[in-house]
Amino acid sequence: MPKTDKKSKPVFTDSINPNFKSKSSSIRGKQEYIDGIRAGNRTVLSQAITLIESTRAEYRELGEEVLEECLADTGNSVRIGITGVPGVGKSTFIESLGKLLLNNGRKLAVLTIDPSSSRSRGSILGDKTRMPWLSAHERAYIRPSPSGGTLGGVARKTRETILLCEAAGFDTIFVETVGVGQSETTVQSMVDFFLLLMLAGAGDELQGIKRGIMEMADLIAINKADQKNINKANQARQEYKNALSLFPAPESGWEPPVLTCSALEEIGLKELWEKIQDYLTLTKENGYFEANRKEQAVYWMYESIQYQLKEKLFHHPAVKKELPTKEKEVEEGKISSFKAATELLELFNG
Amino acid sequence: MPKTDKKSKPVFTDSINPNFKSKSSSIRGKQEYIDGIRAGNRTVLSQAITLIESTRAEYRELGEEVLEECLADTGNSVRIGITGVPGVGKSTFIESLGKLLLNNGRKLAVLTIDPSSSRSRGSILGDKTRMPWLSAHERAYIRPSPSGGTLGGVARKTRETILLCEAAGFDTIFVETVGVGQSETTVQSMVDFFLLLMLAGAGDELQGIKRGIMEMADLIAINKADQKNINKANQARQEYKNALSLFPAPESGWEPPVLTCSALEEIGLKELWEKIQDYLTLTKENGYFEANRKEQAVYWMYESIQYQLKEKLFHHPAVKKELPTKEKEVEEGKISSFKAATELLELFNG
Repeated sequence: MPKTDKKSKPVFTDSINPNFKSKSSSIRGKQEYIDGIRAGNRTVLSQAITLIESTRAEYRELGEEVLEECLADTGNSVRIGITGVPGVGKSTFIESLGKLLLNNGRKLAVLTIDPSSSRSRGSILGDKTRMPWLSAHERAYIRPSPSGGTLGGVARKTRETILLCEAAGFDTIFVETVGVGQSETTVQSMVDFFLLLMLAGAGDELQGIKRGIMEMADLIAINKADQKNINKANQARQEYKNALSLFPAPESGWEPPVLTCSALEEIGLKELWEKIQDYLTLTKENGYFEANRKEQAVYWMYESIQYQLKEKLFHHPAVKKELPTKEKEVEEGKISSFKAATELLELFNG
Repeated sequence: MPKTDKKSKPVFTDSINPNFKSKSSSIRGKQEYIDGIRAGNRTVLSQAITLIESTRAEYRELGEEVLEECLADTGNSVRIGITGVPGVGKSTFIESLGKLLLNNGRKLAVLTIDPSSSRSRGSILGDKTRMPWLSAHERAYIRPSPSGGTLGGVARKTRETILLCEAAGFDTIFVETVGVGQSETTVQSMVDFFLLLMLAGAGDELQGIKRGIMEMADLIAINKADQKNINKANQARQEYKNALSLFPAPESGWEPPVLTCSALEEIGLKELWEKIQDYLTLTKENGYFEANRKEQAVYWMYESIQYQLKEKLFHHPAVKKELPTKEKEVEEGKISSFKAATELLELFNG
């Protein structure tokens, strides 16, 4: 773990440090960030991510410039989305699979998307506690969800964080979603492989898994398939297999397998990782891997356009000033929502 | 049913007319539309809606102006969203409930939201066929989904259509969603009451109903609860009641009831309509009805801002010209999605 100068600069330390704070005036020079990231320095990496997550425009811009310079070093990782309802054992799964990968010499970054998160000392300590082995490993990097903001905003920062982690030499990126909801679609738009964790013995409806999410999965793993649970797990496996067979064949040409595993007893993880390797081999050969990444990059360009445009609009002085009046007029039915919108846009366009 | 001059002006006729076409050069003057709508003329109403749905900017602008002038006459209806998976019997339900309401002297407009729809002769004929009684009734007005476009675009037009229908004197608006998916949230943002149709004997997962949609419902009606099905229906009713009791209490102060009905045999519809009346009484008394409508209007202002902004951006000549180049650069990893977005926005802002 890289040493950080905690006493004199308590602010920009590794994100797993509970003293982490996101606001600081001690900003490095751009080149320092770039060099630090390229050298794989996790402290500098964390600081650069903090820039990108900052609500202050000048920090964010510096972050974007750093990212731009690092771009040539990105892309050389496998990006894996991991989801499943609370209680399915995501933390243990990530910890156990991560252990396997780190023992194979890989470098692993674990990012979390949770739009409801308001990052605090607590939740950072939380990430440290729930993956203690990874937290302590020198080739692992854990970054909790950016705090606050909309799903779009949070996701956008996570996507940039993936790129920075790649530039810092991480060859395996896990993007974990907390809970089950809209965020899966967003995660799918930034990963190469989407892994769905399920439990045996609970119907889909109980697990709150939407049909659309199952359809997104490149692999379903039935977790907690330990000794006393193995029959139920195998039965569930067959059921999910049947269910998957009803879905249209994925564009990738890959047939999503259903496996059983026990993250706690470290059973079935090697097989699972081999399946992911098979997927990568297949999709790199048939061109899907590259095509998908290109499509994702374009998708994120459009997302980013929309996001920046909105930011600009609502920070425009005249718009900002007029907004409360217009809201009131719309509420009172004095003008239509559409006319109010048009008038606000006229202010924006000058 | 108002007479239309079909021979000489085959274009702007009532939407249930299979000869309906959406493009025309025979445009009325603004005041003619306003007067026609205020007089409750369905032909003119249809023509005004066609303006709003038009892809031609000058028609759309005229439509907006008409709407603006009609605004004072809007709001005096109950707006009811109706959803349920295909096969649940939505058409028959709307036809039967509509019959009850029309026989009570109400004026009913039925609008459909279906982002996948590409409106054609076929689907208009389809609406006529699937609700034959309503189609022929002089106090009913059926308008199929605007064709093409994104859900946001389609929904925005539907919201404007609601207002025009109200100005034309319709006191009851049904907004029907086809299938089950994202559109429910959008519909909820424009109705006062959200009704979910279900079937007995099929698990939630089979009916493809997301948990979130059940949570949105102000009333669940188990349809097809006819004689031979009544036991199953009553059992389902109890199950849904139990399920609903697990959800947090709605902001409206209303406890969503679960009813059984048979649209085909016209059983249970009177009770259902009474429940809706109870809801309106309650929420008008406790202020939720008005507060919700205000919130919706503001929501649509923001939606409209975003929509118009995007339209402007992607029609901007310099942006339009540069877009393919930027897409390519992003695909090839030459610049980041974020930088490409920023550069395109710079072109837009001049």
